[in-house]
Amino acid sequence: MSSYKLKDICNQVNISFNGEDKEIIGLHTLNKASSLEISFFNDKKYIKDLAPTKAGAVLIEKEYASLLPKTAIALITDEPYLKLALISKLFAYKIVTKGSHPSMGEGCDIDKRVRFGKDVTIGKNVTIMAGAYIGDFSTIGSNTIIYPNVTIYHHSKIGADCIIHAGVVIGSDGYGFAHTKTGEHIKIYQNGNTVIEDDVEIGANTTIDRAVFGTTYIRKGTKLDNLVQIGHNCDIGEYTLMAGQAGIAGSTSMGRNVVMGGQSGTAGHLHIGDFATIAGKGGVTKSLKGGKTYAGFPAIEHTLWLKLQAKISSLVKKRASKE
Amino acid sequence: MSSYKLKDICNQVNISFNGEDKEIIGLHTLNKASSLEISFFNDKKYIKDLAPTKAGAVLIEKEYASLLPKTAIALITDEPYLKLALISKLFAYKIVTKGSHPSMGEGCDIDKRVRFGKDVTIGKNVTIMAGAYIGDFSTIGSNTIIYPNVTIYHHSKIGADCIIHAGVVIGSDGYGFAHTKTGEHIKIYQNGNTVIEDDVEIGANTTIDRAVFGTTYIRKGTKLDNLVQIGHNCDIGEYTLMAGQAGIAGSTSMGRNVVMGGQSGTAGHLHIGDFATIAGKGGVTKSLKGGKTYAGFPAIEHTLWLKLQAKISSLVKKRASKE
Amino acid sequence: MSSYKLKDICNQVNISFNGEDKEIIGLHTLNKASSLEISFFNDKKYIKDLAPTKAGAVLIEKEYASLLPKTAIALITDEPYLKLALISKLFAYKIVTKGSHPSMGEGCDIDKRVRFGKDVTIGKNVTIMAGAYIGDFSTIGSNTIIYPNVTIYHHSKIGADCIIHAGVVIGSDGYGFAHTKTGEHIKIYQNGNTVIEDDVEIGANTTIDRAVFGTTYIRKGTKLDNLVQIGHNCDIGEYTLMAGQAGIAGSTSMGRNVVMGGQSGTAGHLHIGDFATIAGKGGVTKSLKGGKTYAGFPAIEHTLWLKLQAKISSLVKKRASKE
Repeated sequence: MSSYKLKDICNQVNISFNGEDKEIIGLHTLNKASSLEISFFNDKKYIKDLAPTKAGAVLIEKEYASLLPKTAIALITDEPYLKLALISKLFAYKIVTKGSHPSMGEGCDIDKRVRFGKDVTIGKNVTIMAGAYIGDFSTIGSNTIIYPNVTIYHHSKIGADCIIHAGVVIGSDGYGFAHTKTGEHIKIYQNGNTVIEDDVEIGANTTIDRAVFGTTYIRKGTKLDNLVQIGHNCDIGEYTLMAGQAGIAGSTSMGRNVVMGGQSGTAGHLHIGDFATIAGKGGVTKSLKGGKTYAGFPAIEHTLWLKLQAKISSLVKKRASKE
Repeated sequence: MSSYKLKDICNQVNISFNGEDKEIIGLHTLNKASSLEISFFNDKKYIKDLAPTKAGAVLIEKEYASLLPKTAIALITDEPYLKLALISKLFAYKIVTKGSHPSMGEGCDIDKRVRFGKDVTIGKNVTIMAGAYIGDFSTIGSNTIIYPNVTIYHHSKIGADCIIHAGVVIGSDGYGFAHTKTGEHIKIYQNGNTVIEDDVEIGANTTIDRAVFGTTYIRKGTKLDNLVQIGHNCDIGEYTLMAGQAGIAGSTSMGRNVVMGGQSGTAGHLHIGDFATIAGKGGVTKSLKGGKTYAGFPAIEHTLWLKLQAKISSLVKKRASKE
Repeated sequence: MSSYKLKDICNQVNISFNGEDKEIIGLHTLNKASSLEISFFNDKKYIKDLAPTKAGAVLIEKEYASLLPKTAIALITDEPYLKLALISKLFAYKIVTKGSHPSMGEGCDIDKRVRFGKDVTIGKNVTIMAGAYIGDFSTIGSNTIIYPNVTIYHHSKIGADCIIHAGVVIGSDGYGFAHTKTGEHIKIYQNGNTVIEDDVEIGANTTIDRAVFGTTYIRKGTKLDNLVQIGHNCDIGEYTLMAGQAGIAGSTSMGRNVVMGGQSGTAGHLHIGDFATIAGKGGVTKSLKGGKTYAGFPAIEHTLWLKLQAKISSLVKKRASKE
């Protein structure tokens, strides 16, 4: 992991800083940053996270700086999110093609056309088919099978007893950008990772993005169908089922045993409770309580949705009968 | 094909069976199982299929066992579907990386970075580009072109004059699980296959699942666009058109010349009649007669949908005029 | 580029032509065809393009032939679009597996398992990971990174400073077919190409089709998320953002800084104005003015959509209160 002096970082992104220098190892949110990390404040809904933050320094507009604890150095800027993006590039993992032979348990069956990055660790009885790519520092648990042409980015952790179907991409960059005043998009480098727990099955050509900070999780026993999209920093709870072409926007979390029908989706930063079911094509725009079934867009309780459909049908019939 | 003694199977999944032993070669539905196969009964809508079944044995709850013909051994269990899942694993095809040189007609152009499983058969004048994987016992008809990084699972049959675009996955496992009382999902191994008939074109990164039992069909002359999802056991009729990101859930069948717009979808176990058209984003929740155009979610006849949209517009206008 | 004598072309597709022969190098639309190209007229909405066309010859029904300028040879047929499809095959680029070593700038890091077609040109400091395929005559700008298992079809142009994530397909055939009277689909070979301008990021398993004639464009600074579908001949304006599983049907163009939410889509042949935003799951059925936010299906202005949702809610409540 790379680290930089705070003064060097500030110099590179044109932030004025004259205090005592310190070592910085990365970036994180206000509530998760350590004293060796820089955080940022760009959305008032996180104002309560300012006082208790343990971050070593915080990118912040001048008017809010007084809300920071004494342990957090205020890095004053009019554009905290844009500065975050610029700094994130410093901590980006350098992608290279050079790899090495993985550390491997007994009984593995690895096609000679699998490509490994460096320091990959593989359990026992793992099968990996032709054309798969396993990135630097990734680990794969015992008995897992990886079908052809799967791509696993660096620092991913795949559990035991998983089945990863052809064309799956795990650990690709999340979709995160800061925007300049003239409308350009500046990449926020996605320096987190992805963890797939044990007994997970992932359908063909499904994509799971790595976290911007921290980890994207697919929890134990979850089964994803084909062409599913999981955004960065999602946490998909245990034993969840997501049918074909369902999609979850960034930072949405789920409880256990959630069921999502085909082509359903959720907005980002929501929570779906345990044992909730979302019908096919449903579009979830706010957090949902567990134990119930939802349908439609915006998704509402299924019983209510059925009433709505009946009402809509009667409207059309009325109109038809008047014609 | 592997086979097992029925007593050994029952022992492995904790089913009591003391009758005359017999050889079992696989699993199938009540209406299609042979005397050498085990079937299952877990949904009352198939109760009419019990009496005429030719299955050699049937996983069934005690109260329904008397409805079976004498030729079918009743395998009594409270959880027929879960036992089915456990038995399906016994018949799963063993995935290995080892392959062999295919049998090939004249005039083929095969990239040296194509990977073949064992006993693959290829017609004349076939082109296969780098990174493609062709699984064990698959066949590919004459004049077909397969673009880079396509994955074709074992036992697939691809017709003549087909065009398979980059990143396509054919024959991946269907999405099928039995569920334990504590909410875990037990894989139903997908031991069927996939057949793509002649003159089919399949767009980039489209996924077509193999059948759980029997075959998933894409019939002659059908054209699928990019990122389309075809569930297990679907039968997509001749000369059908499916635009980008359309999806069909498992066991839905279509007549000929069906047209599905972009991002449209259907639920599973439906039938769409010949020459039906489903507009973009339409969501089909029940079987549809042929020869008509449908739209919306839940999909209704397009003419009715247009009336509905007009009604909805007028509602909003009324409200607006009152404000 | 191949060329044919017009008489030979006509012979091959059973069109009667007795005029002075000429060389033909391809096909294009009425408003873009040169004197060395054949065009076609099969939709009255393009009738205004007949008189000014510069095409060397035009496939056209007899009754409209008199509207052509003297420079355009009328190729009389009852089925102009079907004849177009048949002729397009003559000009199709011949796909072969044979490649050659690319021309490459300094500082590149290219995995040995990347496969190049012939005459590929690569800038400086380009990284290309294992399993990528770069087709004939493609170019890749400096500092671009291409992740594993990407497929780039022939004649694509990728700009500088781009990030192409794993499994992306660029330049696959657009979805275009003519139809016979008996319902068969005849491929219109997609003889155009794809241009990705500088500073574009493309998410995992996204697909971008090449143009049927001319070029599909992804303009400077645009960022596409995972599993996005871009149809042939689209022109995605500068600094556009398209979230996961969004899709754009063929020939739709966008201004700059358009934003499309997850699972949203548009019909084909539309224009979306600068700075328009389309909410998640929105379905655009007609061209939209820039600078506004739209939602729903069919997509309407977001403020109106909110009113509509309120109205719908109240309808259900009324009904509920009567029960």
